[in-house]
Amino acid sequence: MEYIARVEVSLKPGHSDPEGETTKNSLKELNYPVRDVRVSKVYLIRLEASSVEEAESLVDEMCRRLLANPVKDDYKFKVEEKP
Amino acid sequence: MEYIARVEVSLKPGHSDPEGETTKNSLKELNYPVRDVRVSKVYLIRLEASSVEEAESLVDEMCRRLLANPVKDDYKFKVEEKP
Repeated sequence: MEYIARVEVSLKPGHSDPEGETTKNSLKELNYPVRDVRVSKVYLIRLEASSVEEAESLVDEMCRRLLANPVKDDYKFKVEEKP
Repeated sequence: MEYIARVEVSLKPGHSDPEGETTKNSLKELNYPVRDVRVSKVYLIRLEASSVEEAESLVDEMCRRLLANPVKDDYKFKVEEKP
């Protein structure tokens, strides 16, 4: 069966976000009343698994091994059967 | 008043996604049964505005002027009053 996982990886609070900082500065230069910008990343992953539980367990492992850095990133995901 | 906008910028269908492709290849090398990966970006923007309508109009403009490339990106956002 095919599943779609939506994984969101964001910086843990307190970690500096250079890309967010640069985006904030660019927006302020364009005169937007912006106080803060944080950037996170979403992975939309299409994968094979025999059940939603197996798909969730694979995706959790992918996050820990490759997609998120445990020192500085938080991640969350949801898995759905592909329509 | 302060508002929080959550903006998601993703590639339009049909546009190639080199970062997604690289991630897919890395996951396949780790033996995950992955078919496809697409990457998109989320901006969490804290901004000042006098109403939610004004905040929405500012964020839409930011997307068109800076955050999304109209040729290759789709964007969507939602704005909420900061709790």
